[in-house]
Amino acid sequence: MIYMDNAATTWPKPRSVIRAVVGCMEKYGANPGRSGHKMAVQAGQILLYTREMLCELFHLHDPFQIIFTYNCTDSLNLAIKGSVLPGDHVITTSMEHNAVIRPLKEMEKHGLELTIVQGSPEGCIDPDDIKAAIQPHTKLIVTSHASNVTGTVIPIEQIGKIARSCGIPYLVDAAQTAGVLPIDLSRLPVDMMAFPGHKGLLGPQGTGGLYIHPKIKLRSIREGGTGSQSESVFQPDMLPDKHESGTINTPGIAGLGAGVRQILKEGQSKITSHENRLGKLFIEALSHLKAIQVYGPGDQSKRTGIVSVNIGNKDSAEVANLLDERYDIAVRGGLHCAPLAHQTIGTLQQGSVRFSYGVFNRLDEVKSCIKALEEISRE
Amino acid sequence: MIYMDNAATTWPKPRSVIRAVVGCMEKYGANPGRSGHKMAVQAGQILLYTREMLCELFHLHDPFQIIFTYNCTDSLNLAIKGSVLPGDHVITTSMEHNAVIRPLKEMEKHGLELTIVQGSPEGCIDPDDIKAAIQPHTKLIVTSHASNVTGTVIPIEQIGKIARSCGIPYLVDAAQTAGVLPIDLSRLPVDMMAFPGHKGLLGPQGTGGLYIHPKIKLRSIREGGTGSQSESVFQPDMLPDKHESGTINTPGIAGLGAGVRQILKEGQSKITSHENRLGKLFIEALSHLKAIQVYGPGDQSKRTGIVSVNIGNKDSAEVANLLDERYDIAVRGGLHCAPLAHQTIGTLQQGSVRFSYGVFNRLDEVKSCIKALEEISRE
Repeated sequence: MIYMDNAATTWPKPRSVIRAVVGCMEKYGANPGRSGHKMAVQAGQILLYTREMLCELFHLHDPFQIIFTYNCTDSLNLAIKGSVLPGDHVITTSMEHNAVIRPLKEMEKHGLELTIVQGSPEGCIDPDDIKAAIQPHTKLIVTSHASNVTGTVIPIEQIGKIARSCGIPYLVDAAQTAGVLPIDLSRLPVDMMAFPGHKGLLGPQGTGGLYIHPKIKLRSIREGGTGSQSESVFQPDMLPDKHESGTINTPGIAGLGAGVRQILKEGQSKITSHENRLGKLFIEALSHLKAIQVYGPGDQSKRTGIVSVNIGNKDSAEVANLLDERYDIAVRGGLHCAPLAHQTIGTLQQGSVRFSYGVFNRLDEVKSCIKALEEISRE
Repeated sequence: MIYMDNAATTWPKPRSVIRAVVGCMEKYGANPGRSGHKMAVQAGQILLYTREMLCELFHLHDPFQIIFTYNCTDSLNLAIKGSVLPGDHVITTSMEHNAVIRPLKEMEKHGLELTIVQGSPEGCIDPDDIKAAIQPHTKLIVTSHASNVTGTVIPIEQIGKIARSCGIPYLVDAAQTAGVLPIDLSRLPVDMMAFPGHKGLLGPQGTGGLYIHPKIKLRSIREGGTGSQSESVFQPDMLPDKHESGTINTPGIAGLGAGVRQILKEGQSKITSHENRLGKLFIEALSHLKAIQVYGPGDQSKRTGIVSVNIGNKDSAEVANLLDERYDIAVRGGLHCAPLAHQTIGTLQQGSVRFSYGVFNRLDEVKSCIKALEEISRE
């Protein structure tokens, strides 16, 4: 099988990730931070190890600025609902995933004010449009780092500078870029960054995280036992405990640590180059096929390893099925949980056939995909 | 090592659980419910399989009444925050874990009214006290099924009958009883039941669930992509999607399915009897040791396999350390994330040394624990 659905979850996982999950379950499968016995202490250490790996990857120095969550959606809900209230104004873009749009739309029902800045047909966001949308009561700007539909990279540095200059917290959804593009949080004007553990970071599903800048104070959205300040009926205020109630997915976090370690060993820039090379080849080859429409920027430096296409007006889900059944190529067809992005690029009816590369994809696999699309487009 | 910390998380996990986790990651590690390719469909099937296993265990027939969550704390936050609003009145008990108390205390700051029914020094709750606390604006009754400090079983059937007769939803926290005691939800007057996947159900950490009775309509607390109604910027209203935003911990749920299958194969009542036998032996032996105080009911039929003790006025955390270092016995000392329960039994200062049995504990291990306590108490 040719797996081209890495934007949904990366596959396969490195052997080291699976070994770390199993090792944790077998050898130190206790509850971290609760009891004081050896195995519980070891379980606590693996959480710290993974936080440290993430700090190295994202150029941070305080591991407790990284909160572990259920998934990137959980991180985004925490960042959004922990920082804004009814009456506040939030700016986001038309390129967002429903993990950003749906919590905001839910809050809008209860009095949140929302401005959705429109992207270009290629999925690009103009930072000046963000600037123009700022109001005196704007309390949060949220954008993805790259679209999950078109792979278009959003200019987070420029947007962050605008946010900083106005004193507005800036939240980045790195669902499609953590482990895919180099991210230097010591330098970028980003106040919160939500990321999944199971996509570019190569960890298991059931893991996610939120980076929180020291100046940001979030309200908790999930209270409960934290293993700390056990004498109190109130949620502790310190990080990461404040936002990590209940038992953490320790084996998952162990796996995530191994995934990030793999990226550090390989080198982020090498991984980025590899995925860009595949993307470039794919887009160039498709540009010669008249029946095929490629969405997003033509220039690979403006996109990630996600390429959404359509063949004439063929149903995108049907094309995805054909690729699966006839060619054993796994892609995602239809709508990709981002209706406004589809509207922006004009595919709300048709959806799109999304190819998404990962670190383990090879050139010959990309060539097989091109060949398959060519054949289907000739039918 | 003798592992006696099963109330925090069960260990070891059955081989079948670890195999299921690895099998999922290796063979069908796609994102369930998102794409339509073979591997994504297989991933979706394992979620359904685990829901069906849970239905068999809890005597339910609709697998979509089971919501998968991050952990039991996440389930409790959903059940509480999804059903009550500022101004509403909620009844709970002094025997609750902070996973119940902290969300309620947080909501109390914003106008929720809260009555905490006092337990007896043995941790028992009198259903009549619950009845007496009911007010016209009572919108929820929440109790645990058994205390995580004393193991005291709460009379959920009687409390549920009272709740039903007044038309008030009843939420049960089964953190210490799912997979430990037989639970028949086709018969019990329970409207919601939160449970962890990684304790009595023998699954991996990072898994939990919430059973929701068909008559209960909860608001969502975490919105995002669900793989369904992708054309909409609003959260879908159907179950389980409404409450399952973002990528589910698929390998964890695969492991949970294997854990529940193991319980069904073994038989819940056999497991319950085994743990009760160990508890009974332990309590009886300790009753002959004058220096040792055992908390909770003396009658094993009124408790689970959790036994909290203290030796004179020795620091409970120090005793736990001694057990770990000198005897290689893993227990939890100090406070167990349930300050009101400690207050109720009079151990808020001293905490307690908590032994908690699991299905894999043996009689000779219990005897070793008794011997160790005997020796420490003589010092």
